[in-house]
Amino acid sequence: MFKDKLRVGIAGLGTVGGGVVKLFESTARLGERLSLTAVSARSRGRARGVDIAGYRWFDDPVAMAADPDIDVVVEVIGGGEGVAKNVVETALARGAHVVTANKALLAVHGAALARLAERNGTKLLFEAAVGGGVPMVKALKESLSGCRATAVAGILNGTCNYILTEMEASGRSFEAVLADAQRLGYAEADPTMDVGGFDAAHKLTLLAAIAFGVLPDFDHVRIEGIERVSLTDIRMAGKLGYRIKLIAKAAQAEGGVEMHVRPALLSVEHPLANIGGSLNALVVDAEPVGQLTFIGRGAGEGPTAASVASDLMDLAEERGGHVFGRPVAQLADAPRASPVERGRYYLRLMVFDRPGVVAAVSDKLAHEDISIESFLQMPAPGEQAVPIVLTTQACGRAAVEAAVRAIHALGVTAEPPYIMPVEETRARFGA
Amino acid sequence: MFKDKLRVGIAGLGTVGGGVVKLFESTARLGERLSLTAVSARSRGRARGVDIAGYRWFDDPVAMAADPDIDVVVEVIGGGEGVAKNVVETALARGAHVVTANKALLAVHGAALARLAERNGTKLLFEAAVGGGVPMVKALKESLSGCRATAVAGILNGTCNYILTEMEASGRSFEAVLADAQRLGYAEADPTMDVGGFDAAHKLTLLAAIAFGVLPDFDHVRIEGIERVSLTDIRMAGKLGYRIKLIAKAAQAEGGVEMHVRPALLSVEHPLANIGGSLNALVVDAEPVGQLTFIGRGAGEGPTAASVASDLMDLAEERGGHVFGRPVAQLADAPRASPVERGRYYLRLMVFDRPGVVAAVSDKLAHEDISIESFLQMPAPGEQAVPIVLTTQACGRAAVEAAVRAIHALGVTAEPPYIMPVEETRARFGA
Repeated sequence: MFKDKLRVGIAGLGTVGGGVVKLFESTARLGERLSLTAVSARSRGRARGVDIAGYRWFDDPVAMAADPDIDVVVEVIGGGEGVAKNVVETALARGAHVVTANKALLAVHGAALARLAERNGTKLLFEAAVGGGVPMVKALKESLSGCRATAVAGILNGTCNYILTEMEASGRSFEAVLADAQRLGYAEADPTMDVGGFDAAHKLTLLAAIAFGVLPDFDHVRIEGIERVSLTDIRMAGKLGYRIKLIAKAAQAEGGVEMHVRPALLSVEHPLANIGGSLNALVVDAEPVGQLTFIGRGAGEGPTAASVASDLMDLAEERGGHVFGRPVAQLADAPRASPVERGRYYLRLMVFDRPGVVAAVSDKLAHEDISIESFLQMPAPGEQAVPIVLTTQACGRAAVEAAVRAIHALGVTAEPPYIMPVEETRARFGA
Repeated sequence: MFKDKLRVGIAGLGTVGGGVVKLFESTARLGERLSLTAVSARSRGRARGVDIAGYRWFDDPVAMAADPDIDVVVEVIGGGEGVAKNVVETALARGAHVVTANKALLAVHGAALARLAERNGTKLLFEAAVGGGVPMVKALKESLSGCRATAVAGILNGTCNYILTEMEASGRSFEAVLADAQRLGYAEADPTMDVGGFDAAHKLTLLAAIAFGVLPDFDHVRIEGIERVSLTDIRMAGKLGYRIKLIAKAAQAEGGVEMHVRPALLSVEHPLANIGGSLNALVVDAEPVGQLTFIGRGAGEGPTAASVASDLMDLAEERGGHVFGRPVAQLADAPRASPVERGRYYLRLMVFDRPGVVAAVSDKLAHEDISIESFLQMPAPGEQAVPIVLTTQACGRAAVEAAVRAIHALGVTAEPPYIMPVEETRARFGA
């Protein structure tokens, strides 16, 4: 089907695309099996730290995707619609392979694109779309192909993890750390995709599709970002033996699959609790292999380009199977399972410091049959409202929400109470 | 080349072989692509918890390996020579694929077997030989195929890690914990392969060959076991902020590759320090991906059978490349690099409690220009010899050994001093 060496065209020369060009220049092994022949980006002249004079230039990445002299299109433009989608569809439709880092595109249009690839006998690989340099996609698709996964849980957004880690380490507020991250280029000018949990939800959608053999179903993920996590929460959680992380989790549940992204309290013994900074990690529970943990750099030029390169090598060595590990026809349209709402919860209440407030709060919790596991009040001299945090014993979320509504209705709280779940440690390292 | 479904024969029905039979019975996906048709073991009648009546029986596993109606031979007999070797050679020579969990065989005969596989156009896969259920082999062979690895370091022997973890947790001696492990079936009656570091060295040999593109060279690994690690060492190291682990490590060094297995002190911040019990883990440093960590169950029926199954699925889906990631002709015969001997060291001296002993020890260290970083003396009332432990600042190993010889020659120590290196934390989670 192809010439001796697969001819590669890169659509997009941002951080990742530039990194792939550099890898082609520095890695003999890639050049033995593939040949980088064409590139396309918005501006030809822009300084990128790589010399692109030796490659065919396309102003229009869709024209490059349509060019019969290119065997593999690397799509690193990004974005869930528009040009990137057009590039991928054009390449697959004419029988070219596609390697992409585009989680937003695949989370929403993954099933349709996988069908398109199957109809045309081409491959669509996306290791770089999830977990940066951590080979989560291949592990789930290939290494666990003889296993039955029951849950995947990860830290999949490096920006959020960097912000939460920095808040804890430096004692600065969410807003201050975010502003720094934006200045340093770790966060976008509009940070919503990251801090709102949407990027992690895109990635979770893809991992869940592979792990459980279901159609990717982004709309099904319940998403909550880290915007409401305050320094008070991080400090108080720390005093209680917890760390706050944005957890993306999908689990087999009664009759379907449950998926969510949300900040949660993790005991310091949880395998994800010590994943700091911009690292990403994934914990997979599967039978009969048990629990597997994968940790590494979740973003950036080097890690992401390395994942693109591993997909390219898979194509060159004729590996790389079905898009989501199975033929699309075998992917189930899994019912959306009800979330497991029974568990321990963390509550932060900003209360007006008046006699009887604690008694009133306790009373409303007791009314919903909720037992308090731990309780902390932080002195805030001179402030109008003081934080009270508590963790509950196992109870239903509906009960917690009812109690919180009742407490807020008392008029003793300065703002609606904030609720976070406590993520249970299914198994510890060494357990 | 093959029928619709690959026909599989399993040689060896111990823990792993029995686990693979169970997986075939419970996993629809395996059965879609492969068909288990034959088994062979020492005794047909032995109770195994699996029904083998439906499979062809071979008394002689070599005869099974030679049978033209079997497309893939799963070799889980074990042992570096003898029957297992004969089975693998017979299968490869007639053009059958082999999936094996046999690290001892591959560490010593891997290059010859890889050549045999290449000549006959067959595949020889061994995910289950290293790291139990943790997909270390595939990660190095495929996911890092666009990267340049500089070091791999791991906890590759679950028995040693279990013993060290139990000693720390229970305060019992090496001998007592080993005896328990033997009773529970976690350690062999002759534990030398495990506690002597040889099993970890076999595994390291295979990982290094893939990571660095070199011929597997078991004789090249410097091996030291955990037999001399005492409860005193574990307690004293703990007081100084370290944990003792058996580390298997291979690194690119000047002009070659350096490989060793040895107990070492790890700061509690080291990515391998918190890997407890029988877990295995691997930390890979590679450019441009950065540091990757893989953690999971390193042995046992389920994890090992799952790795065999992933190799079988690779064969069924026509994945699975060269035995060590590259054609054998491209594997370098790497020179054995000199070990990096400069670093910090831990010393444990059992001294007769006499005035002036500490001064004499300090003097001999100073004579070799060795500075002491930390020092601990443990009270041992009534004992003839008391333990003194210390860690040095960075110095050469030769100097440490010279100082230790000079100290022992003073006649103040009850036994030869014990030396362990302090493993430096190259990068922390989140660094």
